[in-house]
Amino acid sequence: MSGLPLPLGLDAAGAARAIKDRTVTAEALTRACLDRIEERDGAVKAWSYVNPDAALRTARDRDRSLAAGQDLGLLHGVPIGVKDVIDTCDMPTASNSPIYAGYQPSIDAECIRVVRGQGAIILGKTDTVEFAAGGRRAATRNPHNVAHTPGGSSSGSGAAVADGQVPLAFGTQTAGSLIRPASYNGIYSLKPTHGTVAWPGARQYAPSLDTIGWYGRSVADLSIVAQAFRLRGVGAAPSVALSCLKVGLCRSPNWHLTQSASRAAFELAGERLASAGAHVITLDLPALFDSLPAAQDMIVHVEGMPHFLAEMIENSHRLHKDFRERVENAKGIDAGALVAVYDRAAEGRRVFDGLFGADLDVVLTPAALGEAPLGADPAGGWAMNVMWTLLHVPCVAVPVTTGPTGLPVGVQLVGPRFSEPRLIAIAEQVASEIDQTI
Amino acid sequence: MSGLPLPLGLDAAGAARAIKDRTVTAEALTRACLDRIEERDGAVKAWSYVNPDAALRTARDRDRSLAAGQDLGLLHGVPIGVKDVIDTCDMPTASNSPIYAGYQPSIDAECIRVVRGQGAIILGKTDTVEFAAGGRRAATRNPHNVAHTPGGSSSGSGAAVADGQVPLAFGTQTAGSLIRPASYNGIYSLKPTHGTVAWPGARQYAPSLDTIGWYGRSVADLSIVAQAFRLRGVGAAPSVALSCLKVGLCRSPNWHLTQSASRAAFELAGERLASAGAHVITLDLPALFDSLPAAQDMIVHVEGMPHFLAEMIENSHRLHKDFRERVENAKGIDAGALVAVYDRAAEGRRVFDGLFGADLDVVLTPAALGEAPLGADPAGGWAMNVMWTLLHVPCVAVPVTTGPTGLPVGVQLVGPRFSEPRLIAIAEQVASEIDQTI
Repeated sequence: MSGLPLPLGLDAAGAARAIKDRTVTAEALTRACLDRIEERDGAVKAWSYVNPDAALRTARDRDRSLAAGQDLGLLHGVPIGVKDVIDTCDMPTASNSPIYAGYQPSIDAECIRVVRGQGAIILGKTDTVEFAAGGRRAATRNPHNVAHTPGGSSSGSGAAVADGQVPLAFGTQTAGSLIRPASYNGIYSLKPTHGTVAWPGARQYAPSLDTIGWYGRSVADLSIVAQAFRLRGVGAAPSVALSCLKVGLCRSPNWHLTQSASRAAFELAGERLASAGAHVITLDLPALFDSLPAAQDMIVHVEGMPHFLAEMIENSHRLHKDFRERVENAKGIDAGALVAVYDRAAEGRRVFDGLFGADLDVVLTPAALGEAPLGADPAGGWAMNVMWTLLHVPCVAVPVTTGPTGLPVGVQLVGPRFSEPRLIAIAEQVASEIDQTI
Repeated sequence: MSGLPLPLGLDAAGAARAIKDRTVTAEALTRACLDRIEERDGAVKAWSYVNPDAALRTARDRDRSLAAGQDLGLLHGVPIGVKDVIDTCDMPTASNSPIYAGYQPSIDAECIRVVRGQGAIILGKTDTVEFAAGGRRAATRNPHNVAHTPGGSSSGSGAAVADGQVPLAFGTQTAGSLIRPASYNGIYSLKPTHGTVAWPGARQYAPSLDTIGWYGRSVADLSIVAQAFRLRGVGAAPSVALSCLKVGLCRSPNWHLTQSASRAAFELAGERLASAGAHVITLDLPALFDSLPAAQDMIVHVEGMPHFLAEMIENSHRLHKDFRERVENAKGIDAGALVAVYDRAAEGRRVFDGLFGADLDVVLTPAALGEAPLGADPAGGWAMNVMWTLLHVPCVAVPVTTGPTGLPVGVQLVGPRFSEPRLIAIAEQVASEIDQTI
């Protein structure tokens, strides 16, 4: 990251390499992260829990095992932040809910076990919107301008990575909780294909949409974590020449809600790719897709019914009305409407994937409505994300430029389901042209 | 249950009523269950963990609170068994895996919280196929003839309810793990619409299929638990007259695998309904459905990849090869084939639900291939269940008769997604005609 001294200036992929090469120790990197957190957390408020001593102890362990010839894997010695809806066996998981203040899980979430197994250091827990769903907002501020939101619900994870406090962080997306904060904070994110990263141990909310993903400061960062999760051949796909690439610029159904900053970033990205020799076309989606944002909204509410029922029975007085309303089906959604919406979503998945082939390699579409708003993240800020979440497709957020307020604005690249290897290979090339924020 | 003295002879709905009426105490019922377990567990082996003192303590608590005018709800004082892949905060959850022997979760699964909130008493944990998925079999025997299997993977739950050791028990179904054991054991089961009962805290394996359900000894038993989970209006649907009912007899794609016992039970059920005045028709499914059993098999394997990855990294030497092979994609399933199968399943859901209306109220179809086999449950025993699981539709298992070996054989009733209120109302009427096992 520009402006930060080494080792904080390294992205996660660079840090992982430097640790393996023994040019940087895991301890030095972890200490630099902790120092940065100490310096900045009063302003940015990205963390809900950090245990510096435990993190340093693990870092020294990682250094010792590497010295003994034991390389645990792709993330050996690399610190990672964890959205505080994901269980950790050695740190509380509060989900920003008064019900879970201080709650200590007995076991790590599946995704934590995977990255620990690959040598990562869990640096701490990052602040989140309550249950990653509604209710209470995170306290986190945008590190580029603390008067602005970092976006949500993965607020702390996005801000911490952007601010150089940690090279990687986990987030989750059910509406737009990974990709929107990436755009607001000027960083990279992968929301993988739904279901490819195991959810258990993270706070479930709408299972047909809930997706675990991560933040980094380069496409290479996204790739090493994807490789740790063994996403079908990531890292083994051939690299892609821009001159052979067919990029579909897709305004997507909620374009009318976008602000000029997002429109400008979207058009600028298209122009840069065209200048670099890519074949850039306009992709208009069939009318079916116009109804998908509302479909996501219905599904998210209905799937909340069973998932907040136990809280409602045990803790209704401490449960925010956002969640009580879901349990009570306050929107009065009936079975017929719900089934129609599930079926329409499935049809959208089939049709969208069918667009790819000889005429289309990747979709480029806005990542957020505009720059990060002043103050709190407004409801509906996820308008550019909900359809893609519903379609189950992988999305990569890429920074592009800054808007009139000087805050970052990105775009997202979207591929068909289970296409992570190729999408990441494409994103490597595309990012080198369109990301001029560095 | 015939042959058992009161209070064990009561079904769960009857027991719940008797406890509220103060004609039976929760303590007396719990003690009767524990006595029955002590008498029978050496032969049936349904339980992996029971703590009699804790269960009796809870039962006395329930009696005291009722005496003080505090009725916790629909299941006040009713004991329930829990398949040992579902987390309980006061009992270990071993999933029949050497990795989790003695593992004590810090919190109850969502479904446990719901039934405890409605006053149920968690009697203990029931034996299961390893991770409810493969690997090690349960030790449980069929209570009707201990030389035979009770079916799996919800082996202990099915056997314990059938044997009068507990009036209710939770199971899970990803292939045929609820409905098949119900048929083998001669009891009732509801596999609800996928997603209507919150999964978190149960061992996840294939999230787009995994479904929590339960066993009881009557449709009324299934109904009170469904009401506890607030399944959209269960208990409020109008009762159904058999003379107005259009029943579709559906052999379903794997009919060629069924044995004479299942064919006879299926035909007998149809004849009894026709005699009772129902309009019984033959339902032939479109050709699309012939490929759905294989689709379920592919999905179950692919979704196992992420869900056993953490075990593979941490515990590969203690992980059965069934699970290692999933992580390694031993079947070599590629993304294109997988996406095609997801899309075909979605199309099947839409088409199946579309069959219901003026000409069809409910589908009646075999629940298992035949009687419970001798010895272990064979692979593929779930052939009559996998398509319905994939379709996400609610299924109710109903006993019908006994086969040549004297073991129970049932059928299942199937409705469109989210139709539990009507399906249960229909099952009440249908069961009173076709279940002549009592």
